Amino acid sequence: MDCTSNCPVARAHEVLGGKWTTLVFRDLMGGTRRYSELMRSLDGISPRMLAERLKMLEAEGLVTRTVFPTVPPTTEYALTDLGREMGPVIEAMAGFGAALQARA
Amino acid sequence: MDCTSNCPVARAHEVLGGKWTTLVFRDLMGGTRRYSELMRSLDGISPRMLAERLKMLEAEGLVTRTVFPTVPPTTEYALTDLGREMGPVIEAMAGFGAALQARA
Repeated sequence: MDCTSNCPVARAHEVLGGKWTTLVFRDLMGGTRRYSELMRSLDGISPRMLAERLKMLEAEGLVTRTVFPTVPPTTEYALTDLGREMGPVIEAMAGFGAALQARA
Repeated sequence: MDCTSNCPVARAHEVLGGKWTTLVFRDLMGGTRRYSELMRSLDGISPRMLAERLKMLEAEGLVTRTVFPTVPPTTEYALTDLGREMGPVIEAMAGFGAALQARA
């Protein structure tokens, strides 16, 4: 694969490269998640960082945000069809990560 | 996929998440590359950053470095068997990146 400009690998990395992004995806691959569930699962993330990541993913059309008028309001996040196209990347990363771990 | 501790996706991200790392891999998937070829291909990377990334990949057992006693010395980098296990991740990222670009 040779891509000097407009490279799809570079484009994917723009979206996925940031700290936590793949882990947010990993959680959402399992289905709809509340903000509080994501906070609990992503051990060590700051509320500000999680909000920022979710906002970026929403802007990229990868995640939907649904706010329910409970008291206090609850917010749920889910992958869009485009977001689900991340699946094979996460699966491949899991395979590669397992190979790294097997070696260590 | 649920992994709260010792997650292979998180482990893969440790290696791949840094800026430029996936692009170094993308280049090395094409075969052995000289340092100077990588510098030329990775438009905008600093020599220091490239050296740092290659050192990390070598330490992880993903890349070999071969120095030839020419004047001046030439250095070649190649993926190890473990490094080649990154292939499916790069392929999947290319597919996802293409989907992102098709939408834009």
